Parts: sequence; C-alpha cells; structure tokens
Amino acid sequence: MSTISLLTDFGDKDNFTGLVKAVIAKINACAKIIDLCHKIQPQAIDQAAFLLKHSFAYFPKKTIHLVVVDPGVGSKRKIILVKTKDYFFLAPDNGILWPTLKKQKIEKIIAVTNSDFFLNPVSDTFAGRDAFAPVAAHLSLGIEMQKFGKKMSKIKKMNLPRPRKIEEELIGKILYTDHFGNLITNIDKNTFFNFTKNYSFKIHFSGKMIDKISHNYLKKNKNTLKAIFGSFGNVEIALAEGSAEKFLSAKKDAVVRITRR
Amino acid sequence: MSTISLLTDFGDKDNFTGLVKAVIAKINACAKIIDLCHKIQPQAIDQAAFLLKHSFAYFPKKTIHLVVVDPGVGSKRKIILVKTKDYFFLAPDNGILWPTLKKQKIEKIIAVTNSDFFLNPVSDTFAGRDAFAPVAAHLSLGIEMQKFGKKMSKIKKMNLPRPRKIEEELIGKILYTDHFGNLITNIDKNTFFNFTKNYSFKIHFSGKMIDKISHNYLKKNKNTLKAIFGSFGNVEIALAEGSAEKFLSAKKDAVVRITRR
Amino acid sequence: MSTISLLTDFGDKDNFTGLVKAVIAKINACAKIIDLCHKIQPQAIDQAAFLLKHSFAYFPKKTIHLVVVDPGVGSKRKIILVKTKDYFFLAPDNGILWPTLKKQKIEKIIAVTNSDFFLNPVSDTFAGRDAFAPVAAHLSLGIEMQKFGKKMSKIKKMNLPRPRKIEEELIGKILYTDHFGNLITNIDKNTFFNFTKNYSFKIHFSGKMIDKISHNYLKKNKNTLKAIFGSFGNVEIALAEGSAEKFLSAKKDAVVRITRR
Repeated sequence: MSTISLLTDFGDKDNFTGLVKAVIAKINACAKIIDLCHKIQPQAIDQAAFLLKHSFAYFPKKTIHLVVVDPGVGSKRKIILVKTKDYFFLAPDNGILWPTLKKQKIEKIIAVTNSDFFLNPVSDTFAGRDAFAPVAAHLSLGIEMQKFGKKMSKIKKMNLPRPRKIEEELIGKILYTDHFGNLITNIDKNTFFNFTKNYSFKIHFSGKMIDKISHNYLKKNKNTLKAIFGSFGNVEIALAEGSAEKFLSAKKDAVVRITRR
Repeated sequence: MSTISLLTDFGDKDNFTGLVKAVIAKINACAKIIDLCHKIQPQAIDQAAFLLKHSFAYFPKKTIHLVVVDPGVGSKRKIILVKTKDYFFLAPDNGILWPTLKKQKIEKIIAVTNSDFFLNPVSDTFAGRDAFAPVAAHLSLGIEMQKFGKKMSKIKKMNLPRPRKIEEELIGKILYTDHFGNLITNIDKNTFFNFTKNYSFKIHFSGKMIDKISHNYLKKNKNTLKAIFGSFGNVEIALAEGSAEKFLSAKKDAVVRITRR
Repeated sequence: MSTISLLTDFGDKDNFTGLVKAVIAKINACAKIIDLCHKIQPQAIDQAAFLLKHSFAYFPKKTIHLVVVDPGVGSKRKIILVKTKDYFFLAPDNGILWPTLKKQKIEKIIAVTNSDFFLNPVSDTFAGRDAFAPVAAHLSLGIEMQKFGKKMSKIKKMNLPRPRKIEEELIGKILYTDHFGNLITNIDKNTFFNFTKNYSFKIHFSGKMIDKISHNYLKKNKNTLKAIFGSFGNVEIALAEGSAEKFLSAKKDAVVRITRR
C-alpha cells in the first residue's frame, strides 16, 4: 500500500482537499492518504517548509510527500518531483523543500512537465487538483519518475532563519506558534547546549526572563512561563496550562535572547 | 472498494462526522470515505449544492455522494437516494441535489423509508448518524436500491442564481467566497465569452474596475485586483497574493456587472 | 482490519494529528483510523470524557479508542490501556475514561510502561506521537496487553456533573455547546421523564421559558426557543433554525431549571 501525505494551505472551508483526494482515489483506489496539515497560512512557504522538515521522517518509507503551497500557481514556476533514499517529494519549485532536503542525499530530481499525467484541462488556479494529485497518484502506482518529465540537477533554495551568536548572546526568533499557544523558537537543542554548556543561562523574551528548562506544562503558580524542548526539538516558550501566545501577545519573528552567566 | 463522499454542515467542533464514519465502518469495514467538505454554513443548502455540482465528477465511478445539510431533520422531509449512470446520491429532498442533477440522466429515485436499515432508535436531530450513514453503508455493500424504499419520479428543485443580460450589461453576483478570499461569481466561462465575444470588456465590482482576465495570482503592484477563471470554472475576483474578500469587505450576493465597449 | 479512533485537543493548525497517523501507519499500514474529534478545548478533560461516553459504542467492535487530552504530558501521570468486552481504551490516567467505563465491566487495565513500544527518544511534550500512537499501532497488530506494562486494578475517577432534584425543581446545567449553537444539558431522557412524569413542565433558562419538547428545529415564528432530545440523548436548548448559544449569549455551566405544575 502506497502512502501519500498532504501538506497544503487549502484550509478546510472549501472542497479543495476533498477534490485532491477524489482525483487520487480515481487513479489509485488503494493509495492511503494522510493529512499532514492543511492550515498553513495562505502562501506561507516558510511555515510549510518548517513543518515538513520536522515531519517527513515519521512517515512510512516510500511515502510520497505532496506539498501544495503554491503562490505561483498558473505562472511558469516548475513542479518538481524529488527522490531520496526513503521518500518522494512532489512540490512547486519555490524553495519549500530545501530545509528538508539540504542535508539529505538526493537521488533524482524531475521537472514534472508531462501533461499526459495531468487532468485535462488544467485550470489556472488549482494545480493541486489538476496536476499534483494525478501525478502523485500515478507515482503511487509505480510509474517511473522519468515518465513525468526531465531530469534536473538542483532545486530552489530557501533557508529558514538560524539563530546567531552575537558577542555573548545567542539571538533567535519565534519561528512558529502552535495551536496551544506555545512559541517555538529556531533554537534547537544542540545549538542551545553548545552555547550554554555548563553555565547557568537566562532566556529573555518579551520583557520576561526564564532561567531553566522545564519538562512539562504543569503549573505551580499562576502565569508561569516555561522554556521546554517541544515536539519540534527546539526551545519553546510556553505558559504553564495556558497560551503563551495570548499571555504575551507574542508573534512570529519576535526575538528571543539567551545569555549565560 | 466502495467510495462514499461526505458533504455536510457539521463543522469539526463535535463528534458528528466521526460518528457517521464509525457507523459506516461498523457496517462496511471496507468502505473508503472521502471528506468533500464539512464547513458548509449551517443549513446553507445553496452553498452545498454549489460545491457538489462542481465536485462530484472528480470522484471514482460508483461513488456514493452522501450530502447532509438538513434543516428539516426530524420533520417529514424525505430522504432520497438517486442513481445516475456513474454515481449515487443520498440526501434530504430539499433541493440540494437539483443543480447537480438537472442536466444528468437520472436512472432511479428512491424515497428511503425502510427503517430496517436505520439505527434503532432514530434520534430526532441526527439523521446523519442514524439514517443516512447506515443507508450509505448498506448501499456500499451492494444492496439493491429498491430495498431502501419506494420509487419516486421526481426530486425537489432549487436553482442557483444565474447571471442575467440586461440591455448591454451582464449582471452576476458573488455565489461563494473561498478560504483564500477569492470571490467566485456565478458567471461561467461560456456565459462570459458569449457576452464579451471579441469586444473589450470591463468588470465592475465594489467600485473597482478590471479589464482583463489574468492567469495567475502573482502581483506586479500593490493591491492589484484580478479577474481569473478559478477552479470552479467561473469568473473570480481575486486580490493578487491577498484576500479580495478582506480588501473589498465583499460578501456573498454582491453584484458584479460586466460591460463591453 | 483494526480500527483506531482518535479523540484529542490537538486542533488542526499543526502537524500533530498527521504525525500520530504517520507513526501508526509506519507500524501497521492496515490500521484504519477514524477521527472522532480533535477540537476538544485545550486540556478540557471533561469535554473529551463527555464526547467519548456518547460516541464509543457506535464504533466497530475491537476498536482501539485513543484519547489524548493530556495536561500532564511529561509528568509522572500514567498511561493506561483498558479492555472491556467490546473495546480497547488508551489514554492518560487523568479521569477521562471514567464516565465511559464506570458502568461497564472492565476486563483488564494495564499501566503502559514498556518503552520498547515507544519511539526513541520520547519527547517531553508529545506523548501522542512518541508513546500513545506506537502503542495503539502495536496493539492493533494483535500484541498482547500484558506486553505493554503491568496490571493495575483501578483507574482514576472523574464524574461529570449530574442534575440534582432540589425540593420541587430539577436543576441541571449546560455541559456542552455544539457547532450549531445547541446547548446540551446534563439532563438525560430518563431523568427528565422520571421528574416530569405526567405533569406539565416548564424549562427555565436564561430568563426564558419553554413548556414542551420539540422534535425538529424548524421554526414557525422568529426567535423560537425549543427544547429537544438531541443526538446525545439529553435535553438540548435550541433556537429554531439558528444558534441558541449566540441568541442567548449562553455558556457552558449555565444553570437550567425544570419545574412541574
């Protein structure tokens, strides 16, 4: 059984995701589809890239990761199909795959151009239904990658912002806020411990200070801010049993500073 | 493998859709369920009819389209099961199927009354779980349509608003707004080109004017409004890389006028 | 085919539910997953307990009900696996299963501790992905319950509020509000009729009075409030063809009084 994961900015107000699934089922009734996320902010390539990077490896080997956050739909932007040792990735060539793929060995890249595998006609606005879905479905049937178009040698790059060390501070930012209002920084565990080593440290954010890493969200006192290594493996700012996002009126891209004594 | 599509106004706050799927799985563990949309506005029959009309044909043949937008639940409104050459449709007889079926050859209509196929008891408020789901599941097992009730000869009609030509103007309206804030009119491609022919044209909406058809959403300048044939095949008013709905504070039913020179 | 139901407070903004499904699919590609609900308010154990109690029995026998509303994630709270005659339940031991299980015969309770069945490492914040999902998946493969940990004799209790009879009044409260704005009380059909018997009755709520039970939501007049036995089997306060929640600005825990003449 082939697995296809879906990561889009389609939301759930409309029939968009339903039609992608319908088109896939019509071509390969046995494909198993897993919704990774459809609530990427419209056109937020960086957000999708972040979620994909932290998600793809949890899926069964040979999963086809279909990513449709595609501000350039209808334009001449390419559709790319990439194979690594364990996974396939199908997405617009807008940088969205770069954070996931930059440290992996890429076995093959195809620019998808063969309209034999598209619906006919292809609309100007819904390549997800008319091009991405049927290509993913045919790929899941075992059709060879070369049939979909021509080989390419590289994909578009786009880097997520990295924390910087400036003098004696580690400067990061909020990359993502989750449903619970946890504020996920771009500071991963390694970077954090390479900086803090055995020193004591202070995490400065939004006028508040946190001086330890917690291991759960339970509160002892009212309005306790915590720093915790969350499910993305990065430092998160959390409000114990509440929403740090609401409590601090915090936003994506806000700066987090770490100092050590 | 049988496919059942679900189109409802259940939202996703509750256990409603989950229970429909549970009931189906209990009767036919092999039925494949595809969520078409659950975010129809409560009781918005016209909106569901619009989405169904533009969606049903993308599904595998023999799909059972289960549509539960049912303001009359608990009353004497009929439940109907309709077969066309390629699909089954199961819905309340409130007009919701009419825009989809009016141009198709209907092979059979059944008024679903046989409570042997319902859960027992049937609640007053949740026919989706207690009647529609088990009927769809039994149908997906191959039970003959006649077993579910008696033949009928026609279904309730309900037409979606059509554009009108008044003197030298084509007058349409916004039928639907999507997740991206695109404003979908009721003016389809044929109607548009039959009216504009080889003339130049102007699309008037909300105090703005657009004089060409675009093929993508990319912006050249700030706040560029575009007209585009969207995924429904109709003229859409879009804001390049933004939400026309928010930019124009536009609403369903707002008037769109097209003039030609 | 094994069925796993998912009931969580994950929302749908993130990749959380997608990753739970990915982890399950990687271990058991044939497990069938049904989303019961993911929009439980963050950490609202009582709300999840209410939905589970009114949902579990609609699922196929042998379904594994996976419930992850887990304010104590990362702390020493137990993960429990419970078997009844017809179902399995996997959840944190925080009382969430009690309303469902208190009237059922429990065949076995296991405290899940065997990390051989967890992902490695287990994060502090996402036991749903790292512990619950792989345990549910392995269980769906037929692994014996004892392999996951040690037997326990009882689970944590948590009761949902019951209506009380005080002098000649039955005093209940709003337990839950649904997507349509229906206000679901904690007064079930039996309790209602045991109190009202053959008397006439009045339902008092939010300064309004209702003196009969309706069987549908259709309106005769504007702003008609109705009492109806809804899909949970309890008395609901509904606004005919509208939202009682909005009309009355009503909230969870608001008091409902029933008097008889």
